Amino acid sequence: MEHTIICQYTEGMAFEADVNEHTVVMDSETEFGGRDSGPRPKPLLLVSLAGCTGMDVVALLEKMRVSYADFKVEVSGTLTEEHPKYYHKIHIIYRFQGDDLPLDKLEKAVQLSQEKYCGVSAMLSKAAQISHEIVLD
Amino acid sequence: MEHTIICQYTEGMAFEADVNEHTVVMDSETEFGGRDSGPRPKPLLLVSLAGCTGMDVVALLEKMRVSYADFKVEVSGTLTEEHPKYYHKIHIIYRFQGDDLPLDKLEKAVQLSQEKYCGVSAMLSKAAQISHEIVLD
Repeated sequence: MEHTIICQYTEGMAFEADVNEHTVVMDSETEFGGRDSGPRPKPLLLVSLAGCTGMDVVALLEKMRVSYADFKVEVSGTLTEEHPKYYHKIHIIYRFQGDDLPLDKLEKAVQLSQEKYCGVSAMLSKAAQISHEIVLD
Repeated sequence: MEHTIICQYTEGMAFEADVNEHTVVMDSETEFGGRDSGPRPKPLLLVSLAGCTGMDVVALLEKMRVSYADFKVEVSGTLTEEHPKYYHKIHIIYRFQGDDLPLDKLEKAVQLSQEKYCGVSAMLSKAAQISHEIVLD
């Protein structure tokens, strides 16, 4: 199976990507010739990671019949100092809110995503040290 | 330097990410419990790659005083068949339109991005075989 995206340059430093028939705009800060009309491309990599593992966890918890009031995925990436600047460390926080949350099942779902299903984690873990934790707010 | 993004689960399979104070929605197809309200997380990785290398090329060509009528970055990723499904092959097409385009300078800009500056290419090349070509339309 192959996925294809098209990213059209518009003006300044801005690009408009067509992905699954949705548009995603990317742009740089004004100091680099952009107008901040969209996010930077690099942290979008962290968004892709958060969405990929987040959807796994939602689907797995649904199968386990676990409900919760709120769920967030926070991802932090630490950049190297030299070019090419990339994330050599990534930390994922899975934040849940709810009554009587079964921590063992949350851990199981997160572990299955990180070890078996999440393709973005699998790719990025070849270049970065990825750590994660579960936080109950 | 550290970058942090927050990805909030909303409903179904949808997440809303806050990245550089912009919102990016991700969702799955209806067959996987989503409503297709945004792109899938995995091809968003290809968008991040296209934007990162695309901005490098725009900035480098500006320094080289090369102008063009149109510029697009197309990225295709081939998925593995087994879980975790990730892109093991990625092909980037840099498409330019314009009169008397200096191919040597376009090649130099693309090469500098791929070999020196593009942090997303640097990360993904640890997991995937990345190839690229320049096409003049």
